[in-house]
Amino acid sequence: MPMEQLPALQLLKKIYILQDLQEKELQQVLDIAEERDFPQGATIMREGEPGEMMYIIRAGEVEITKRLILEIDEDAPRDKVMIRLRADQGVIFGEMALIENDVRSATVSALTPCRLLEVKKDAFFKLINQNPATGVKILLRLGQLLSNRLRKSSEDVVKLTTALAIALDR
Amino acid sequence: MPMEQLPALQLLKKIYILQDLQEKELQQVLDIAEERDFPQGATIMREGEPGEMMYIIRAGEVEITKRLILEIDEDAPRDKVMIRLRADQGVIFGEMALIENDVRSATVSALTPCRLLEVKKDAFFKLINQNPATGVKILLRLGQLLSNRLRKSSEDVVKLTTALAIALDR
Repeated sequence: MPMEQLPALQLLKKIYILQDLQEKELQQVLDIAEERDFPQGATIMREGEPGEMMYIIRAGEVEITKRLILEIDEDAPRDKVMIRLRADQGVIFGEMALIENDVRSATVSALTPCRLLEVKKDAFFKLINQNPATGVKILLRLGQLLSNRLRKSSEDVVKLTTALAIALDR
Repeated sequence: MPMEQLPALQLLKKIYILQDLQEKELQQVLDIAEERDFPQGATIMREGEPGEMMYIIRAGEVEITKRLILEIDEDAPRDKVMIRLRADQGVIFGEMALIENDVRSATVSALTPCRLLEVKKDAFFKLINQNPATGVKILLRLGQLLSNRLRKSSEDVVKLTTALAIALDR
């Protein structure tokens, strides 16, 4: 797998939810992460399926897609509308699985051969229970990440409701 | 203020983000909360304005409203679309302010005379830093609350996008 790689600790320092951790704490996160390789085109997670791990992109690029339109009629299914996001260094995905038991909210595929660091929910819980001060630092940032996303999504709801009101008014 | 009140600790036990706490920990939360009374009709917080505290409803009822349609044209402003939520015992609001620095995402008014418990962000940070095991329990639940809301909001985006596609297709 011919990819440039940052030293793992340096990579972890760039991750938003880990930014308050000291080197020793980053090492503890690294210790519970497992390296996994995915070939180009592989589906890493699929929207609607259960999942219990978060991923950190060690090398490579992924594509995150999410269905934006419901299939209204089986005979004439509407195309999925995709959001394409390029994951760069310091990017994580699947992080909601660290704190809840629910299905994946998006599909993630490998655009290039990918090396990922996989962090399982169980191991994460063990880590933050054994090191609650580290847990507080990570969970605060994760909460901030989620509340930022919630604000953006709420803005989208306002914009779409407005657009719909205008469209229905024509 | 003629209102029935649960003993404060019993009330705190009903709150989602505090449900994993032991009695001793609930008491610590209670110790940093200040009782505040609002007359009927008072605006407790206003959408778009800064705020640094969370509230627990001790007695009374509030109305939570949120703008759902942008004002497109100053001369012909569209009415606000409101979501009305009745707050019951065990209900909190403003909890996003505990973990982030941002403006209020909704307006909250007192439908009846209200007695609230106010928890300031500073005091909350001090509490979870001094008692990180308690902090982990609260922040995990807060994260779950936010991720549930994010899922619901994302579903709304999908539904609205679908409705808009149909409306534009007519």
